[in-house]
Amino acid sequence: MITLASDFGSPYPAAMTGVLARRTDARIVDVAHDLPRQDVRAGAFWLREVLPYYPPAVHLAVVDPGVGTDRAAIVVRAGEHALVAPDNGLVAPAARELGDPLEVFTVDTERVALRPKRADGSRPSPSSTFHGRDVFAPAAADVHDVGVAALEALSYLSPATGYVDLEFPEPTLEGGRAEGEVLVVDDFGNAITNVPGDFLEGDDAVEVDGERVPARGTFAAVPPGDRLATVGSHGYVELDVNQGRGDDAFGLEVGDGVVLEGDLE
Amino acid sequence: MITLASDFGSPYPAAMTGVLARRTDARIVDVAHDLPRQDVRAGAFWLREVLPYYPPAVHLAVVDPGVGTDRAAIVVRAGEHALVAPDNGLVAPAARELGDPLEVFTVDTERVALRPKRADGSRPSPSSTFHGRDVFAPAAADVHDVGVAALEALSYLSPATGYVDLEFPEPTLEGGRAEGEVLVVDDFGNAITNVPGDFLEGDDAVEVDGERVPARGTFAAVPPGDRLATVGSHGYVELDVNQGRGDDAFGLEVGDGVVLEGDLE
Amino acid sequence: MITLASDFGSPYPAAMTGVLARRTDARIVDVAHDLPRQDVRAGAFWLREVLPYYPPAVHLAVVDPGVGTDRAAIVVRAGEHALVAPDNGLVAPAARELGDPLEVFTVDTERVALRPKRADGSRPSPSSTFHGRDVFAPAAADVHDVGVAALEALSYLSPATGYVDLEFPEPTLEGGRAEGEVLVVDDFGNAITNVPGDFLEGDDAVEVDGERVPARGTFAAVPPGDRLATVGSHGYVELDVNQGRGDDAFGLEVGDGVVLEGDLE
Repeated sequence: MITLASDFGSPYPAAMTGVLARRTDARIVDVAHDLPRQDVRAGAFWLREVLPYYPPAVHLAVVDPGVGTDRAAIVVRAGEHALVAPDNGLVAPAARELGDPLEVFTVDTERVALRPKRADGSRPSPSSTFHGRDVFAPAAADVHDVGVAALEALSYLSPATGYVDLEFPEPTLEGGRAEGEVLVVDDFGNAITNVPGDFLEGDDAVEVDGERVPARGTFAAVPPGDRLATVGSHGYVELDVNQGRGDDAFGLEVGDGVVLEGDLE
Repeated sequence: MITLASDFGSPYPAAMTGVLARRTDARIVDVAHDLPRQDVRAGAFWLREVLPYYPPAVHLAVVDPGVGTDRAAIVVRAGEHALVAPDNGLVAPAARELGDPLEVFTVDTERVALRPKRADGSRPSPSSTFHGRDVFAPAAADVHDVGVAALEALSYLSPATGYVDLEFPEPTLEGGRAEGEVLVVDDFGNAITNVPGDFLEGDDAVEVDGERVPARGTFAAVPPGDRLATVGSHGYVELDVNQGRGDDAFGLEVGDGVVLEGDLE
Repeated sequence: MITLASDFGSPYPAAMTGVLARRTDARIVDVAHDLPRQDVRAGAFWLREVLPYYPPAVHLAVVDPGVGTDRAAIVVRAGEHALVAPDNGLVAPAARELGDPLEVFTVDTERVALRPKRADGSRPSPSSTFHGRDVFAPAAADVHDVGVAALEALSYLSPATGYVDLEFPEPTLEGGRAEGEVLVVDDFGNAITNVPGDFLEGDDAVEVDGERVPARGTFAAVPPGDRLATVGSHGYVELDVNQGRGDDAFGLEVGDGVVLEGDLE
């Protein structure tokens, strides 16, 4: 199985799928192609959130503001999974979640180019703006079908001494107070913070930037349109509105700081 | 085959796909993940419209404003199909369309939890906000691979005495007059009413809330930008604009009443 | 393999997938269902851009402003591929790219109708507004499973003397000056012109409608928010903004003329 994730929208990812299908019979699964555009941290968040639910697979992920620069293309082995991505931190949090051993390789991008012949027999030259299609997709197919060890023996992959890491900011937790940050806003408008869900344990209310809101286990525990704090499916405190958008109601966007006060009287 | 439909947007459904792929080799087909958010009736309309075109399959559908409350998770057998969904009426109209016998079971949600281990060997606790991933996806995989009868023998499924039904409102039809309602608006902006298509039979015009518009078999039978009434692919009268949005042009939204007068002189 | 592309949005394409899955075991791949609505030229551009990356397949494509009129449904053989589409030029550029031999057939649409029975055993009558589901999907399944030659022997397909062609406008190139046109705008907001990429060869700047902008091989070669001209992955000059929208920054939309001056001092 090969999973695909990108910020490419549509229809560019369909070219990646075509390249994969030419090169391998692997099952291909789209994770998402509307990851927040050019936002490596948000992409890293979602990959860490979603990929651990998959069986062993090759995960191709491209959010790549540096496409065409000298940033490396890497393959990361993590547990029984392999991740293929630009070396910008995008897959680092997911790789840690997918488990040991964690080995990193750089891809010899000259070796992977696959460009379909045109009707006249010529091949277009590789693009410097669409490595998803011209570098990462063929590399992922080869990692799937040939395997990392064989590709290393062929010098197609070379061991790397490290990779660009990416850590999410940690909240400051002290007593019943947490100073955190909005990591991402999801499609529902839920503002997902970096404060661990157990911060809310035992509380039926919490102060968010000084305003008291109910802390509940489910959206439906407050009337439609009302604000609440809950523990999202990723395990973090999120600030929501039942059947509405939490980001608007709390006036929060990605990167905003947020102060939570629990253990209220 | 397992089909998936939800109002989860992106990328949450990819976690459901991962859970399914871990648990079954079934072919997985996405129906839609942009069903109108938290709108059970609209979801029910689209499922009834689309699912009858599929071969026998397990259909997983989640539009679930009551997630985390005590609403049941159900499995409905209808003909050779099975539907797995929250018990809120979402799959009732599709089930009736898919045919007899129609049996309903409740899912023992304690039995289905599948949470991938983290790298440290621990398992996160199940979420109360994402049953699509933590309850419905594993249940659908098990219905597909194990079958309803075996799951019933295991008390994983228990016969239910009934389920939450959902009926679409019926129009009032009298002579050449129909008092109906806009059931849904599709992506094209076509306002789909609950008036059966044969209401237009033999007519080349119809009055919509007192204004005369052409009744035509195809969009292209009126100039681009012009309004028309036609019979949509679902068999209902819809109010459209050729190469434009009918909802805007007629000033109609979901739930609005609409009066049609046919048999005009 | 059968690929699907349309401007149908969601969830209508899921009905096409169901029809296909009833009729064939072929692998089904979605190319895009958000092709620019009712815009045959843009659809033709994207199909030509994406389909050549696929292995031999049946490509089903529907952007069909004339649905329900007497425009034909056609099958085009191009190299080892077959394209199934309305006869409006949509697949002509892709077919030329996919190679010889290029043969065109018309579909006897009376032969293809597949309508699932309802629970009461009746069949709904075919729709005149959704040929994607009722004509093109069953035809594509049959082309895949039965083959063009056998379908021709059955008079299901008949040789056509021609088909509606579609050519993209050619730019006027004279010395260092190109008078071109914006062919499409992609999801990133990149304004893709019809000027071949080698126009920029050796240039580090270009005048666009009289204003000088850098010509670069990669987005990241200019600061975020800055404009640039580059050669897109399709081989044309495109007008972009690094991490922004080129169409807005250049004030360009599809169909707008654009004058490029290269070989600047």
